Amino acid sequence: MKKRLLLWIAAAPLLALAQPQEDAAMIKKISDDILRNGKAYELLYQLTKQVGGRLAGSPQMYKAEAWGQQALAQMGADRVYLQECKVPRWVRGGTDQASVVRIAGKPAARKLDVLALGNSLGSGKPVTAEVITIQDFDELEKRKNDIKGKIVYYNNAFDPTIVKTFIAYGQAGVYRRSGPSRAAKYGAVGVIIRSLTESEANDPHTGGMTYNDSFPKIPALAVGPRDADYLWELGKKSAFSITLKTNGHFLPDTTGHNVIGELKGSEFPDEIITIGGHLDSWDVNEGAHDDGAGVVHTIEILRVFKALGYQPKRTIRFVLFANEENGLRGGTQYAAEAKAKGEKHIFALESDEGGFTPRGFGFTAPKEKLQRIQAWLPLLSPYGTAELSDGGGGADIGPLNRNLGTPLAGFLPDPQRYFDLHHARSDVFENVHKRELLLGAVNMAALIYLVDKYGF
Amino acid sequence: MKKRLLLWIAAAPLLALAQPQEDAAMIKKISDDILRNGKAYELLYQLTKQVGGRLAGSPQMYKAEAWGQQALAQMGADRVYLQECKVPRWVRGGTDQASVVRIAGKPAARKLDVLALGNSLGSGKPVTAEVITIQDFDELEKRKNDIKGKIVYYNNAFDPTIVKTFIAYGQAGVYRRSGPSRAAKYGAVGVIIRSLTESEANDPHTGGMTYNDSFPKIPALAVGPRDADYLWELGKKSAFSITLKTNGHFLPDTTGHNVIGELKGSEFPDEIITIGGHLDSWDVNEGAHDDGAGVVHTIEILRVFKALGYQPKRTIRFVLFANEENGLRGGTQYAAEAKAKGEKHIFALESDEGGFTPRGFGFTAPKEKLQRIQAWLPLLSPYGTAELSDGGGGADIGPLNRNLGTPLAGFLPDPQRYFDLHHARSDVFENVHKRELLLGAVNMAALIYLVDKYGF
Repeated sequence: MKKRLLLWIAAAPLLALAQPQEDAAMIKKISDDILRNGKAYELLYQLTKQVGGRLAGSPQMYKAEAWGQQALAQMGADRVYLQECKVPRWVRGGTDQASVVRIAGKPAARKLDVLALGNSLGSGKPVTAEVITIQDFDELEKRKNDIKGKIVYYNNAFDPTIVKTFIAYGQAGVYRRSGPSRAAKYGAVGVIIRSLTESEANDPHTGGMTYNDSFPKIPALAVGPRDADYLWELGKKSAFSITLKTNGHFLPDTTGHNVIGELKGSEFPDEIITIGGHLDSWDVNEGAHDDGAGVVHTIEILRVFKALGYQPKRTIRFVLFANEENGLRGGTQYAAEAKAKGEKHIFALESDEGGFTPRGFGFTAPKEKLQRIQAWLPLLSPYGTAELSDGGGGADIGPLNRNLGTPLAGFLPDPQRYFDLHHARSDVFENVHKRELLLGAVNMAALIYLVDKYGF
Repeated sequence: MKKRLLLWIAAAPLLALAQPQEDAAMIKKISDDILRNGKAYELLYQLTKQVGGRLAGSPQMYKAEAWGQQALAQMGADRVYLQECKVPRWVRGGTDQASVVRIAGKPAARKLDVLALGNSLGSGKPVTAEVITIQDFDELEKRKNDIKGKIVYYNNAFDPTIVKTFIAYGQAGVYRRSGPSRAAKYGAVGVIIRSLTESEANDPHTGGMTYNDSFPKIPALAVGPRDADYLWELGKKSAFSITLKTNGHFLPDTTGHNVIGELKGSEFPDEIITIGGHLDSWDVNEGAHDDGAGVVHTIEILRVFKALGYQPKRTIRFVLFANEENGLRGGTQYAAEAKAKGEKHIFALESDEGGFTPRGFGFTAPKEKLQRIQAWLPLLSPYGTAELSDGGGGADIGPLNRNLGTPLAGFLPDPQRYFDLHHARSDVFENVHKRELLLGAVNMAALIYLVDKYGF
């Protein structure tokens, strides 16, 4: 016995090495197959060009669901099914308009490039009012007695010194989400925000907002960054007025679906790993990076596992979530059903920060688990993953963590170009790079392979 | 004494910590200033749009030299000077042309998108010949008796499974550099290569080649990747002929200049640190990523040091090298003069892999020095540097290492998009992203700050 134990101890370091070599070899196979034979770019072409923009409740939403079912089936899922959920149905209702019509008391006519914020309600008739230009909420509070009857323009911009642009977005995003009602509280008749971007282009960026029911639901728009500069400078020099017209409204909630493909686990079929992105997008673009990339990353991982004959130990769900942009109904429903059925969700991964070159993953997980995961870094770094950091996940998988305590990860592509396109007309297929997109799928597939093999 | 020593020992860890905090604060200042006030993007606009393509010896080369002198002086260099060197003067001499003119014995007329390779000599009159399509040099050797009188088409492509695209380029590049003479050895009358790219677009990519003087100097072109696919498939099915015409020739060598700005070191003025990029570009584009980015990175580092009032301990030279693309005369001259004057060059850094989001630096340096440098990683990683790896430098600073043993580093931006543009018409200002460009300068400036402070 003693001799055997000694032999075992002597062999242990070799065994410990054997695993990483085997894993490195498998991950290289995954990478080679995706970079040679990956379908993510072609799938993205279909989703962006044949389906197009696909806001929840729109006819394109149904087209996207049918497309997603077919793609998951073609890639060889054991089972493909729909999970029903009610989704909101906001409609832009026409072309959003705003023009500067009076400067220093004299008639003017400068058209601005604008988009109504998602979920905002239309102005009905055109609204004409003097504009009050303010930098931030502090200034709003100081000047609260000057707001009544005016259109508030918020100039709050991204802090350019923040390298991780999603942090800058988090800080500036509050003006889009709650800026309209905070101005309505003091009697504003409309709100225009500086678009949430650092781009040099003048494209306006839409995105979700929410009214506070205590105040009037005033029209709300985003203006392109160059027009934003113009308004800000104009406000320093002169009084001016704008005429704006928006047409947004809600139709009754309708039925949408999470589209789910599944590979059944061979050893631990009750332990579920979820990978996903959201199928919906805003109406003004093709939703290529947001979140077509996440959708095709998800399908690509299924494809490569099947192509390599990889039989997972645990059950893997490939989920195309129904509604993230203006309701989060898809992710909410998914977690609610998981909880109701008593499912065991051991890990969930989302890709919803674009199809750019990979940087790593951010985790919402207990510290000791994260430390274990961080030991995998040398296996992933040849493919671009440089960080496995604390903090992260995704909007659609968030409810799994909140309701079931499931550990989460969010794929982190390079974030420098994302907010050039995010919610703007320019989020189209042409602005996605094939190899960058495929490398995202490589890193995600490698992480899922490791989680499936070793658990989380 | 003993008590003092104990106190010193107790304080030592605190002192050891103080330095990194001070460095982290300084690097944050560098980053904030570049991201807020950086001029690299505006400078690149000037260089690409007001100077344009600037092949060595061309009129634009002189315009670029004057622009570089002015920019270095404006940014506050202690001294700006020119270092003379002879440069080659290759001229494309007209529009490069190639068409498929016969397929399976019947007349055809399919125009191909081509560019003559740099340094190649013109065909004089149009050359018409049957094409032999071959995959690689192994096949060339096997079929050496079939080559005579034919145009050789080399189909060798990038290996898509190589994540670091510069390695794939290194492997495929031999077909551009020596493919023509290897075919001429067996009697070929012309060579067409598949462009060195993985792009989906059909742009042809030029670049330097060298004739072996033992064989006829036959015309040599690169064909766009989609046309390359067409030729390869056509060759499998039918005999076909191409008519090609190129017009390249050399004018006599002319006088060019390395443009050098200097900040004199306050403590060790004899220890020289060089930062550089190359001022020349190919003639068919604006040389935006190759190497306008490296040029403006270099000038930006000078700008930020002056803007922050940073007085270097060592002498820093900001060098815009005269001629990299088709001769390496600038870097060769710089190292030769350094050697002749007995200068002490402690470190050189080049940016010549584009203006994309930063990934890190590659070093050619003794192992123990590299290990010391790698301890700086936590200071650089907040800005995108994820690797400080063994191997790297740059063509222009290579002679410093070969002749003086100077340790080198090359800036490593993300390499996925570079070969879409490299030496193609699409290497223009519009394809450079402002924040990605500025972040390159942030990481380079931070590294130079650390090398200046602690030596190498």
